[in-house]
Amino acid sequence: MDRPLVILLVEDNEDHAMLVTLALEEVNMGYGLHWVKNGEEAMDYLYQKDMFAKTEDNPRPDLILLDLRLPLMDGHEVLKAVKESCDLKTIPVVILTSSENQGDISRAYSNYANSYLVKPMSSDLLVKMVESLGDYWLKWNRHPV
Amino acid sequence: MDRPLVILLVEDNEDHAMLVTLALEEVNMGYGLHWVKNGEEAMDYLYQKDMFAKTEDNPRPDLILLDLRLPLMDGHEVLKAVKESCDLKTIPVVILTSSENQGDISRAYSNYANSYLVKPMSSDLLVKMVESLGDYWLKWNRHPV
Repeated sequence: MDRPLVILLVEDNEDHAMLVTLALEEVNMGYGLHWVKNGEEAMDYLYQKDMFAKTEDNPRPDLILLDLRLPLMDGHEVLKAVKESCDLKTIPVVILTSSENQGDISRAYSNYANSYLVKPMSSDLLVKMVESLGDYWLKWNRHPV
Repeated sequence: MDRPLVILLVEDNEDHAMLVTLALEEVNMGYGLHWVKNGEEAMDYLYQKDMFAKTEDNPRPDLILLDLRLPLMDGHEVLKAVKESCDLKTIPVVILTSSENQGDISRAYSNYANSYLVKPMSSDLLVKMVESLGDYWLKWNRHPV
C-alpha cells in the first residue's frame, strides 16, 4: 500500500488515548491517527456523517482500535455494526479494553473482533503492548485496499 | 490462560511449515503446534474426527495459521466453514499465504479472517514476520477460553 495507513482510535479516556498515541509514535511508522471519544462518533466517522463529512480530512480507516466501555454506544455495539456492514466488515477491529471478563472476550470474537487486547495497568507494559500491536498490524498485516 | 496455547498450522508446503515452526521456536513461548497438510485434514482436526478423534492428543486450537492454496479443500473454504460455525467462529484465524492478490485479501476479510499475512520470499524476513506474529498473538492477544 503506497499511502500511509489510517488508524481510528475509539477511546473515551484521555490518558489512555494519549498513552496509545505516544506508544504508536515509538513504532515510528507512517500512519494517520484519528481519535473519537464515543461509539456514536465512531459510527459517524465511519459513515462520514455530520462533523466527519469532509472525506479528505476523515479517510476510511485501515485499522480500528476499539474500547468496550464507551458513552452513548458501547464498543460491542460498534463492533457488531461494523462487522454486519458489507461496506465496513473488512476493516480489522482490535478491541483495546481494561476488561479481562471472559464474557466480553467471547462476545467480541463471536461478533468477529479481529483481536482482543487487555490494557495492562502499568504504562510501561501498555507501551510494550502497543509497540507489538504497531509492529504487527502496521508493518506485517495486509489490509484490503 | 494457564495452559499452553495450541496452534493449528494448515500448510501443504513442508519447507514453509518447517520455517514457520523454527521461527516460532525463536519466540520461545510455551505453546503446542499441530501441523496438518490440507483443508480436509484441518476440518477433521477441528471437529476431532477420524485420525484426530483422540481429543487429548488433538486439543482445540487457540489460533489457526491458514495457507490459502491447499489440496482437497482450499483455505478460503476452511475459513468460511470455521467462521460460519457457532462452535469454531471464536478461534482467531490468521491467513499465511504467498498470495498478495487483492481479491484474496478482500475475500478473506469478508469471510472474517482475523488477519492476513503474506509470506516474504526471503527466509530472514519470514522469520522476522513469524516472530512478530508470535509476540503479538501468543503474548498479548487474549483468546476465549
